[in-house]
Amino acid sequence: MAEMTPRTLSGFMELLPKPQQQMERMMDILRRTYSLYGFTPLDTPVIEAAEVLLAKGGGETEKQIYRFNKGDADLALRFDLTVPLAKYVALHYNDLSFPFRRYQIGKVYRGERAQRGRFREFYQADIDVIGDGKLDITNEAEMPAIIYRAFSELGLRRFCIRVNNRKILNGFYAMLGLTDKAGDIMRTVDKLDKIGAEKVRTLLTDEVGVSAESADEILKFIAITGSNDQVLSALEGYTGRNETFDEGLDQLKTVVKYLSAFGVPEENFAVDLTIARGLDYYTGTVYETALLDHPEIGSVCSGGRYDNLAECYTDKQLPGVGISIGLTRLFYVLGEQGMLNGDLPTAPADVLILPMTEDLSAAVTLATKLRDAGVRTQLYTEQKKFKAKMNYADKTGVPYVVFLGEDEVKNNVIACKDMTSGEQTTLDFAATLARVRDGLAERNKGKVIVEK
Amino acid sequence: MAEMTPRTLSGFMELLPKPQQQMERMMDILRRTYSLYGFTPLDTPVIEAAEVLLAKGGGETEKQIYRFNKGDADLALRFDLTVPLAKYVALHYNDLSFPFRRYQIGKVYRGERAQRGRFREFYQADIDVIGDGKLDITNEAEMPAIIYRAFSELGLRRFCIRVNNRKILNGFYAMLGLTDKAGDIMRTVDKLDKIGAEKVRTLLTDEVGVSAESADEILKFIAITGSNDQVLSALEGYTGRNETFDEGLDQLKTVVKYLSAFGVPEENFAVDLTIARGLDYYTGTVYETALLDHPEIGSVCSGGRYDNLAECYTDKQLPGVGISIGLTRLFYVLGEQGMLNGDLPTAPADVLILPMTEDLSAAVTLATKLRDAGVRTQLYTEQKKFKAKMNYADKTGVPYVVFLGEDEVKNNVIACKDMTSGEQTTLDFAATLARVRDGLAERNKGKVIVEK
Repeated sequence: MAEMTPRTLSGFMELLPKPQQQMERMMDILRRTYSLYGFTPLDTPVIEAAEVLLAKGGGETEKQIYRFNKGDADLALRFDLTVPLAKYVALHYNDLSFPFRRYQIGKVYRGERAQRGRFREFYQADIDVIGDGKLDITNEAEMPAIIYRAFSELGLRRFCIRVNNRKILNGFYAMLGLTDKAGDIMRTVDKLDKIGAEKVRTLLTDEVGVSAESADEILKFIAITGSNDQVLSALEGYTGRNETFDEGLDQLKTVVKYLSAFGVPEENFAVDLTIARGLDYYTGTVYETALLDHPEIGSVCSGGRYDNLAECYTDKQLPGVGISIGLTRLFYVLGEQGMLNGDLPTAPADVLILPMTEDLSAAVTLATKLRDAGVRTQLYTEQKKFKAKMNYADKTGVPYVVFLGEDEVKNNVIACKDMTSGEQTTLDFAATLARVRDGLAERNKGKVIVEK
Repeated sequence: MAEMTPRTLSGFMELLPKPQQQMERMMDILRRTYSLYGFTPLDTPVIEAAEVLLAKGGGETEKQIYRFNKGDADLALRFDLTVPLAKYVALHYNDLSFPFRRYQIGKVYRGERAQRGRFREFYQADIDVIGDGKLDITNEAEMPAIIYRAFSELGLRRFCIRVNNRKILNGFYAMLGLTDKAGDIMRTVDKLDKIGAEKVRTLLTDEVGVSAESADEILKFIAITGSNDQVLSALEGYTGRNETFDEGLDQLKTVVKYLSAFGVPEENFAVDLTIARGLDYYTGTVYETALLDHPEIGSVCSGGRYDNLAECYTDKQLPGVGISIGLTRLFYVLGEQGMLNGDLPTAPADVLILPMTEDLSAAVTLATKLRDAGVRTQLYTEQKKFKAKMNYADKTGVPYVVFLGEDEVKNNVIACKDMTSGEQTTLDFAATLARVRDGLAERNKGKVIVEK
C-alpha cells in the first residue's frame, strides 16, 4: 500500500513532457540569441548566505524570501538573478574583464501568495552588461536589438519595445521644481492607462500636491506621442533648461539613431514617456515590452540602465544595463492564450523502432546507425500486442515508426511509416534516413509561438 | 562604503566564465546524447513538501537534507532526482506513456560536511526508463551504450563500464544458504580492492560469521575474471542450482550479447562480479563506470535496474532502470586532473568589433550582419586606448578582432585579425565570414576532455 499521496507544491510549475519540450525550445532560443551578442553563460548558487543576499535590504521582496537555517548558517534562496550577479562581479572582480556581459537563465524563489499564474519558483532569463567605472551608451542602444531578435526567433511579431530615459523624466520634473515629488508623480502617471488623464490630473493636484499649472505641464508632457521622430522633436522644445534632461535626450537620440542598424524595425519600437520602471534603481534608458494583442499581460521583458550594481559589496563603481524575461510566467500566459505551436515535434524520439524478430541484433544495429546519424531513436522492445505498440507511438507523437521483420532484415531494407501522412515506404538505410531528415526539417520549420 | 564582503557559501560551485563555458559544453553533450536515445527532458521543482520527499525515509541522507518551514509549510530541497521522478510518475501516471524515458540534469542539495571536492549543491545528470508493470531487459542492455556514447563524445577513451546483475549475486548467496548474510557479505566483498582477498576472507569468517568453506567459495566466485566470454563461461558452471541465479545469468548474457550491436567496444565494458551497488534498491543489472587512469575517483556513472520506483506514492508496479552522472563532482575532478581541454573556445564571442569611426552605424550594421549569419559578435564601444581594447580581446580570448575605420567603411572591406596566428586580412564581408567560420570549425574540433 502506498503511504503517501504524491503532490507538487502549489506555485511550482511542473510540466508534462510535451509542454516541457516547448519550454526547452524557448530556453534554447534565448541561450542562442544571448550568445550571439557576446554574453557568456553564468550559473550561481540557488542558496546564498542570507546576510549577503539581503545586504541591500529586500524591501517589498523581503517578506517573500525563503530564508532558513542549516546548522549555524542563516541561508536564503535567491529571489532574482541581479543580486547574485552583483555578488559575483564584486567577488570575482579581479578575474573578470569589463565590460562583463553575462546571461543567466535560472530559477528564483519568491513565496508570494499562491494564485493562478503566479509562481513561487520561476525562471528568469537575464542579460546584463557591467562596466568598470563607465559604460558606453551603445550598450543601451543594443538592448532593444536583443529583445527584438529573441522575440522574433520565438515567433512573436506583434510586440512593441517601449523605451524611455529616466534622465529625461528627472530633468523634466526638475524644471518644474518638482524633484522632491518626482517619485509620487511617476507612480501616479503610471496609472494613466488604467484610470485616464482626467483622474491622473485630479490625483496629481489633490493627493500629490502639484499645482494646477504643473499638472497641466505634466499631462501635456506625457501626452507627447507619435513616431519616434515626432516624439524626439517635441522633446527638443524642452532643451536648454536642465542639464540632466539634455543628457537624457542625447542618450535617447543615440538609442533611436542606431535602431535600424541594429536590425530593429520601427514598428517594434516606440519612445514612450510614460515608462518609468523601478524608481530607485534605474538611472538612464528603461525598457518595457508589450504584446500588442495582450496588453493585459503587462511587460514581458523589462530592464534598464543602472549606475551602481554592487554598492553593497564593493566601493568600485559598476554601472550596467540589463533586461530580464520572466520566462515561467511568459510560458504560462502563452499556454493560456493558446499561443504555443502544437505542430512542432514534442516527442521524445524522431523514430520508434518496432522489432518484429526474435533476435534483436538487426534492430539494435539499426538504432545505433540512426543515432550515429543524429536521429533521436527509441527502440521499443516491450512484449505487447501490435495495437498497443502503435498506440504508444500515437500517444508520444513520434513522427516515424520503423518495422523491422525477417523480410526487411533479409532484404536489407527498412519499412518506415510517416505517422502524420500514414505513408509507408520500404527503402534502404540511406534513402530512409534522407526521408526522415527531410520530414524532420519540414516539421521543425515553425516557431515556438504562434500569433492568431 | 560597501557594507558587506561578498562571499559564496562553501560547498557551492561558482565558476568563472571560462570554466563555466566548459561546463555548459559538457551539459550540452549530455543533453544531446540522452536525446538520441529517446529520452525526454524533465524539470521538477527544487523544493518539495518534506513529507512527500521523505516519504520513503531518508536513511543516511536524511541528516543532510535542507529542510525548513515557510509559513505553515514543511519544505525540503531535493537531494537527488530519483525521488522527484518517482513522485512525478506516480502523480502524472495517467498522462504519461510507458515505457517512460526521461532525462533530467538538475541541481540537488545535500548538507554534507564541507571538504575539498565535496559539494552541497551539485548537478546530477540522470536518465531512467520506467515501465508499467514490466520492463524489457533490452533497456538494461542499452544503458552501457548510452554511457559509452556520452563519455566518448565528452572525449574520454580510457574508461570501463563495469556491469553485474544482482540476481546472480543473490542467487549465488542463496546457493550457499547465506541469503540472510548477503548484505553483510557484499559490503565486505566491496572492500576487496582496498584491503585484498586475505583480509576479506578473515572479515567474512570472523565478523560476518561465514564458514571457512563458504568464504573460500565466495572468494573463488568473485575471483572470476577475464574476458566477458570467460566470465560468462565460468558462471555457466553454477547454473541449475538456483532459479534467481539462472535468471540473472540469462539477463547478463542478453546485456553482453547486444553490446557490439549497440556500438560498445569490448575494451570499454567488463562483466565484474564485485559490483553490487545500492544494496536494497537495485534488483537486476547494475553499472559502475571507472576512469582507468584515475581509479581513485571511484565510479563516475552508476545505476541499475530496480523493481519498484514509486511504491511510497502508488500501488502500481513501476520497474525501471537508470544511471546517474555526478556532474559537478566529475567536472571538479577533471579540472583538478588538468583534463579539461583549454584549447576549445571559451570566449563570450567569436568576433570582437572595434569601431574606429565617430559614427558607429557601419560597425553596428556589421555586427548585425555577423549575428544574422550566426556568428557570436561583440561590439566594443568603450572609450579606451587601443592597447586597453586589445588587452580586453586577449583576456576574454576572443578568436577574431575586427577593426573598422573610415578606410574600411569607404572600401566596403573588413580588417580582421586572427588572435591566435596574428594574421590579419582585409577582405569583403563574405570572405571574412568564410574565414571566421572555417577558423571556428577548426577551433571547435577538439573534445571537452583530454586524456594525457
